Amino acid sequence: MINYSYIFQGTAFTSKSVNEITIYKDYLFLVDEDGFIQELVSPKDERYSLIVDECAGRENFYRLKEGQYFLPGFVDLHIHAPQWAQNGTALDLPLYDWLHTYTFPLEAKFANADFAKEVYEDLVSTLLANGTTTALYYATIHKESSYLLAEICANLGQRGLVGKVVADDPEQNPDYYRDEDAKTALLDTEEFILAVNELNETTKQGVYPVVTPRFIPSCSDDVLKGLGELAAKYNTHVQSHCSESDWEHQYVKERFGNNDAYSLHEFGLLGEKSVMAHCNHLEEEDVDLFVKTGTAIGHCPLSNAYFANGVLPLARFLSKGVEIGLGTDISAGASPSLYDNAKQAVVSSRMLEDGVDTSLLAEQRGVKNSRITINEAFYLATAGGGESLSLPVGRIEKGYAWDIQIVDTKVVGNRLPIFDLNEELYDIFQKIMYLVKPENIKEVWVQGEKVHSR
Amino acid sequence: MINYSYIFQGTAFTSKSVNEITIYKDYLFLVDEDGFIQELVSPKDERYSLIVDECAGRENFYRLKEGQYFLPGFVDLHIHAPQWAQNGTALDLPLYDWLHTYTFPLEAKFANADFAKEVYEDLVSTLLANGTTTALYYATIHKESSYLLAEICANLGQRGLVGKVVADDPEQNPDYYRDEDAKTALLDTEEFILAVNELNETTKQGVYPVVTPRFIPSCSDDVLKGLGELAAKYNTHVQSHCSESDWEHQYVKERFGNNDAYSLHEFGLLGEKSVMAHCNHLEEEDVDLFVKTGTAIGHCPLSNAYFANGVLPLARFLSKGVEIGLGTDISAGASPSLYDNAKQAVVSSRMLEDGVDTSLLAEQRGVKNSRITINEAFYLATAGGGESLSLPVGRIEKGYAWDIQIVDTKVVGNRLPIFDLNEELYDIFQKIMYLVKPENIKEVWVQGEKVHSR
Ligand SMILES: [Zn+2]
Ligand SMILES: [Zn+2]
Repeated sequence: MINYSYIFQGTAFTSKSVNEITIYKDYLFLVDEDGFIQELVSPKDERYSLIVDECAGRENFYRLKEGQYFLPGFVDLHIHAPQWAQNGTALDLPLYDWLHTYTFPLEAKFANADFAKEVYEDLVSTLLANGTTTALYYATIHKESSYLLAEICANLGQRGLVGKVVADDPEQNPDYYRDEDAKTALLDTEEFILAVNELNETTKQGVYPVVTPRFIPSCSDDVLKGLGELAAKYNTHVQSHCSESDWEHQYVKERFGNNDAYSLHEFGLLGEKSVMAHCNHLEEEDVDLFVKTGTAIGHCPLSNAYFANGVLPLARFLSKGVEIGLGTDISAGASPSLYDNAKQAVVSSRMLEDGVDTSLLAEQRGVKNSRITINEAFYLATAGGGESLSLPVGRIEKGYAWDIQIVDTKVVGNRLPIFDLNEELYDIFQKIMYLVKPENIKEVWVQGEKVHSR
Repeated sequence: MINYSYIFQGTAFTSKSVNEITIYKDYLFLVDEDGFIQELVSPKDERYSLIVDECAGRENFYRLKEGQYFLPGFVDLHIHAPQWAQNGTALDLPLYDWLHTYTFPLEAKFANADFAKEVYEDLVSTLLANGTTTALYYATIHKESSYLLAEICANLGQRGLVGKVVADDPEQNPDYYRDEDAKTALLDTEEFILAVNELNETTKQGVYPVVTPRFIPSCSDDVLKGLGELAAKYNTHVQSHCSESDWEHQYVKERFGNNDAYSLHEFGLLGEKSVMAHCNHLEEEDVDLFVKTGTAIGHCPLSNAYFANGVLPLARFLSKGVEIGLGTDISAGASPSLYDNAKQAVVSSRMLEDGVDTSLLAEQRGVKNSRITINEAFYLATAGGGESLSLPVGRIEKGYAWDIQIVDTKVVGNRLPIFDLNEELYDIFQKIMYLVKPENIKEVWVQGEKVHSR
C-alpha cells in the first residue's frame, strides 16, 4: 500500500546548475503530506509501473495532459506591494517626481485597511496567476496593513516574506509618509515580527517577517542599528536596496565614507537571509563581502532600465559565486511576471556584452563575456531565488517544497508554436520561457496545495 | 435617416504627434461601408445625442462596455513568417549557427504547402490575437507558399504585405535553400507580384506584394538590380535589412565601397514604399538619404538585443524626421507582440541614454537625450507604422481605415490594476501599454470587419 499526499506524473524542467537544465521526462513525483517532494521515480525504475498500476485513478494521482509541463514556481525577490496600484504609470518621469508625485502619496494611502486589502488581494492573486509561488515584499510603513499583506499571503496560499517598511529620516521622507521616529519604527517593527511569526505557526507554506529599511538614504543611523539588532534577535530575513543608482551609491559614500554594502554590513544587515535589491553599482570588494556574508542580490532588470543607470554585471557576479535571483520590482518594474524579467535579464546582459552606442567601434562598445543564457535566467527565477532566501524552493527535487506551475502549451488563446510532434523537449522549454502568458499557467501549487487554477 | 456601415461609441487613444496622445472620450466613430472612418463625433457636438437616439439598439451600433477602450491596430513592419515555427528557440547560439543549423533548414521546409499552411495560419491568427492588423512579411524563397501566405492574410482578414524572399548568391546561401539563379529569382518575383496584385482586387483590406531581397549579402548584383527595376515597374513596396550588425555594415562597405543604405539606393530599392529593418548602424549621411527618399526604418528592439550589436538611436533619428515603425522580427525577436516590442523600445532607449557598463563614470557611459517615452513607443507601433507603409492606417482619425483593437481592462484572467474609479484616462492608457496580454484584446477589426474576438 503506497501512501503519499499526492502523486504527480508528467515531464518537468528544473535547474541542474546555474546554466544547465534537467528534464525529467514522464517521471512520478511523490509529495508527502507536509507538501515536500519525497521522491522522484524514473520511468526506468522498476517501481514506476507498480506505483502507476496501484495508484492511477485515485483522487490523489494527478497526471499531466499532453502538452502540459511542470516548472518550479517562481521566486520574486523584490516587490513593492502597494505600488501595484500604479503599475505601468509615470515611468517617463524623473525619479524625484516619480517618488514625490506618485509613489509616496500612493503608499501613504495604505493607512486605509480597505484600500490595502483590495490592492494586496489583487496583487497576490495576480502573482500566483503569473506562476510566482514565493514573494519577498516591501509593504508600507504601516504595521497594520503590512500585517494584512502577510495574512492575505497566508490565506491565498502564497509563500510570502513581508516587510513593514522603515523610513524615519525627516530630510529624505515627506511629513505625510514616514515613521514618527527611530524608536517608534523599531517598536512597530518588533511588534510586526512577533505577529507574523505567530501567523506563521498556522500557515502550511510559511509566511515570514522581514526587516526592511527602505534604503540607507531613508533611514537614521539609530534606526539602521536597531534594525540590525532586531534581525539578529529574531533571526529574520532582511531586505533593502543597495547601490542601485549612481545617486544612491554616491550618497552612502558621502554619508558614511564607506560603500553602501559595507555600511549595511556594519549595521548588521548582511547575512545568509539578506536580499539586497539591484546592486548594479557594487564594486569588487562589495561583491566579495556579499559572497563572504551569504548576502543575495535581487536582480530586477526591467526596473533597472528606468532607475539604475546601468546593467547588473550578472555573468561576472554569478562567476564569483554571489547568490542571485530575480525580482519584478513592481512598480519601477512594470510587469508582475518573472517570465518578463527572465527574458529581460537575457536581453540586458546581451546589451551589456555588445554595448549600446553604435557610434563607437565594436571593441569599445561593450563588456566581453557578459551575456547569460535563457537557462541561467530560468535558474535565477527559480533555484537562485530559493537559494537567496535559504528556503527549500525553486527546484523540482527531493526535499524541496512542491511549489510548481503547470504550463499548458496547447491553451486555445495562446497555443505555443509547436508544429513538430517530435520537437525536442529542450526546444519546448525555451518556447515556454519566451512565450508563456498567464493563460498558459493552468495551475499553481504551493507546498503541496493547489492555490490557482484556470 | 443616418446610414453608416457601423457606429462605434466609446473612448479611444490615438497618436496626435510622435510624442502626444489624443484621448477621444466617449466619442462616436462613424465607419463607412468601405471600412474607413468617415467622422468622429464629440459628445459636445449637437448631433451626438441625435445619432445615439436614432441608432442605439440597431445591429450596427456598437457601444463599448465599461473598462473597454479602442486602440489603433498595430502595424508590424518586420516578420519572418516561417520562423514562427522556431520562435523562442536557439537564441543563445551565435548568428552563423542560428542561421545554418536552425533557420535555413526550417525555411527550406516551406517548399511543403501543407506545412506552410499550418504555420502561416497559426501565425496570422496569433498576430491578430495580439492586436496586429497590418503586417509586413518575409515569406521564403518559394513563390507558391509565399502566395499562400498572402491568401491566408486575405482570408483571415489581416492587411498583409508579403514578400517572396530573394537570395541567390551561392557563396552566402546553402545549396538546399537559395534561388536557382538571378534570372529565375526575378521571374518568380514578377509572377508573385502579378498573382498577389490580382488577389488584392478581391480583398477588402488589401494584400500587397513586396520586393524582398533578403539582404545585400544574400544577393547577386544582377538580382538586386532586377529587383529595383521590378519595384519601379509595379510600384510595389520594398523591404530588406540594412546595416543591422557590425558584420553586415562592414560587409557591404567592402563589397561596394559604399554604405549599405547607399548601395540599396543605387539598386533602386529605397523610396516612399521601402521599409528597411533594423538600421542600427546607419551613419549620418545614410539617415539623410532615408529622409530624402522617404525610406522607413522597421525598428525591432527585441531582436536587436540578440543580433544588432547596439541600440538604434531612435530619439535622434526621429528628430531628424525619418519614418520609423516597430517590427517583431520573429524569430530573432521572440515575441509576436508589438506591446512587448513597444515596451522594449522604451527600455532599450533608456539603456542607450544611461549606458550599460557601471564600471565607467556616469558621464562616459551613455548617450544623452536618447530616451523615448511610452507615447513615442505607441506612436511607432501605430501611426509610425502606417506612415512607413504609406497606408492610411495606425490612427483613429477621419479617412483612416477602421483597423482597431478593443482592449478590455476588466478581463477576469488579467484584470488591470485600476482601483480608483476616477483614474485618469492617461494613466489607464499607460497601464494598457504596459500590462495588456492577448486575453485583454477582446476584438480586432480590420477595414471595418471584425476579424478576431474572444
Ligand atoms: Zn525597490
Ligand atoms: Zn529580419
